[in-house]
Amino acid sequence: MNITIRDVAKRASVSVATVSRVLNNSALTSKETREQVLKAVAELGYRPNANAQALATQSSDTLGVVVMDVSDPFFGALVKAVDTVAQQNHKYLLIGNSYHQADKERHAIEVLIRQRCNALIVHAKALGDAELIAFMDQVPGMVLINRIITGYEHRCVGLDNVLGAEIALRLLLSQGHQRIGYLGSDHPIEDGPLRQRGYTQAMAAAGISPADSWHAFASPDLQGGEAAMVELLGRNLQLSAVFAYNDAMAAGAMAVLKENGIMVPQHFSLVGFDDIPIARYTSPKLTTIRYPIVSMATLATELALKGAAGQLDVQSSHLFMPTLVRRHSVAPWQNEVSVTL
Amino acid sequence: MNITIRDVAKRASVSVATVSRVLNNSALTSKETREQVLKAVAELGYRPNANAQALATQSSDTLGVVVMDVSDPFFGALVKAVDTVAQQNHKYLLIGNSYHQADKERHAIEVLIRQRCNALIVHAKALGDAELIAFMDQVPGMVLINRIITGYEHRCVGLDNVLGAEIALRLLLSQGHQRIGYLGSDHPIEDGPLRQRGYTQAMAAAGISPADSWHAFASPDLQGGEAAMVELLGRNLQLSAVFAYNDAMAAGAMAVLKENGIMVPQHFSLVGFDDIPIARYTSPKLTTIRYPIVSMATLATELALKGAAGQLDVQSSHLFMPTLVRRHSVAPWQNEVSVTL
Repeated sequence: MNITIRDVAKRASVSVATVSRVLNNSALTSKETREQVLKAVAELGYRPNANAQALATQSSDTLGVVVMDVSDPFFGALVKAVDTVAQQNHKYLLIGNSYHQADKERHAIEVLIRQRCNALIVHAKALGDAELIAFMDQVPGMVLINRIITGYEHRCVGLDNVLGAEIALRLLLSQGHQRIGYLGSDHPIEDGPLRQRGYTQAMAAAGISPADSWHAFASPDLQGGEAAMVELLGRNLQLSAVFAYNDAMAAGAMAVLKENGIMVPQHFSLVGFDDIPIARYTSPKLTTIRYPIVSMATLATELALKGAAGQLDVQSSHLFMPTLVRRHSVAPWQNEVSVTL
Repeated sequence: MNITIRDVAKRASVSVATVSRVLNNSALTSKETREQVLKAVAELGYRPNANAQALATQSSDTLGVVVMDVSDPFFGALVKAVDTVAQQNHKYLLIGNSYHQADKERHAIEVLIRQRCNALIVHAKALGDAELIAFMDQVPGMVLINRIITGYEHRCVGLDNVLGAEIALRLLLSQGHQRIGYLGSDHPIEDGPLRQRGYTQAMAAAGISPADSWHAFASPDLQGGEAAMVELLGRNLQLSAVFAYNDAMAAGAMAVLKENGIMVPQHFSLVGFDDIPIARYTSPKLTTIRYPIVSMATLATELALKGAAGQLDVQSSHLFMPTLVRRHSVAPWQNEVSVTL
């Protein structure tokens, strides 16, 4: 037995339209009418239907976010930062997982638009620029995170992935390492090629041309890091260090190195990327590149809310810089302790 | 410039009601009318408004889930399992974070109900039974996870937390440990007292009465585990093992033990709870109690969808059993290597 707006109108002896005006906080109702209606709402236990409210006001109290996978710690931190801003603005969160697949990214965005989310924070990597631009033209409150599209810079929040990788490599090179491998992600998203480009550029600047065999690719998680490190070890390349696509892969690699009696950092140095919490709980603690995802997601959410309100500054752009976090997984290269690798 | 259902009706030369019937897949339209309308929809690029559709059919394609904090790996795994079932059923996920606070739990549930989610999976720990029962009576598709309320067992999916702790303690006791500490969570949710009861019962069965000083409480995460372990070490209790409320606390404790030169498991044994991924990447790998959260969340989602469809079996109940996962953080007690603790 559902209580409807008609029941409330009847009990309060007013029209349905009047009840609707009161519930939508319209200024067109008298104080007496307002109290009469709210009394009837309380007595009947009526819950206004959010869908009806959204229709009436052509907006909704939900804010949408699209991420690769909410159970990945990096995206968990992103979603939590968005939720914090959402709560401050009395909005609720609708979350779509896209698993880095074009059809799921498209579907997630479409569903959120159909739900009339007036602010959308989208981590989209599989869709092309043109399709994202079409969505952004349709939804003024849509903002991209970790991707920058020319002409839409004021609605994009990005990180310089190439520079982050270069910083990691410069540290390893400065410690005397030369035979440095790369543990890459096999997800078809641009972060992979960008971080690999930073690796290659920094190596080239030091006069080193890494062979293809120094690279191994797997899923960007703990298991993938294990698999890729096993692959590199099996190739017997005399590497003394690796740079990993992310911290999860670096942590997986560290586990494999230990199981094979190769001590980190005495025998082998490791650098990750992201600075997720796990980086502080590996042993030794992981040296990594900090991805300021919380600051970036917070800004993206604020931009999305401004965009929905038509208050965006079209002159602004939002490129964040990665920074080095030195912990204990890197040591100077020492010929005498180098292992056959 | 929004395309409305009226524009579609005009272009297709039919009434608005007819367009609505076609979009809601009503059987009351002819094949010709249907094609005419869908052609107009395609030509105009009309996107049906999900709020309007939900109103028309009195249901929505969103499914709601309330968790403590989506950025916590345990709840990330829960949400991902719910999302997997949701996708199989072409539903989208609305997520509310409750941070174990009664007002936020209540608000999250109310918002999801107002959004007309017809299926709700709720991890609520702060609200009382009476209030949850009132919500469940209102929403037939609401199911509780990690909580069992008498009379509503068919809509509750739970785990025997007491038994899980007893299993952990029996392992430590069987290895000769007697002075076993407890690293507890300071979150005011019943899992804490239940796991502590299992610890106390198993100790009592072995004739041991742990002093209050053997227990330390902190936040149920890596930092909390560090803090609680530092606290226990400072008390100089000659403990040889601890059972931790969860894996994150155990991993934090392991980091502190290592920093203090106390080797796990040679000098000190540790058992966690949950079996989240981090348990396989600590060094040594963590012995823990498996919380089958993916199976439990999958079942809870299926029950919620059945409940929404009025197809629940009221005779069923859903209590899962924890199991021991033996890895490498427990060794037999050895007097000669015991450290002053």
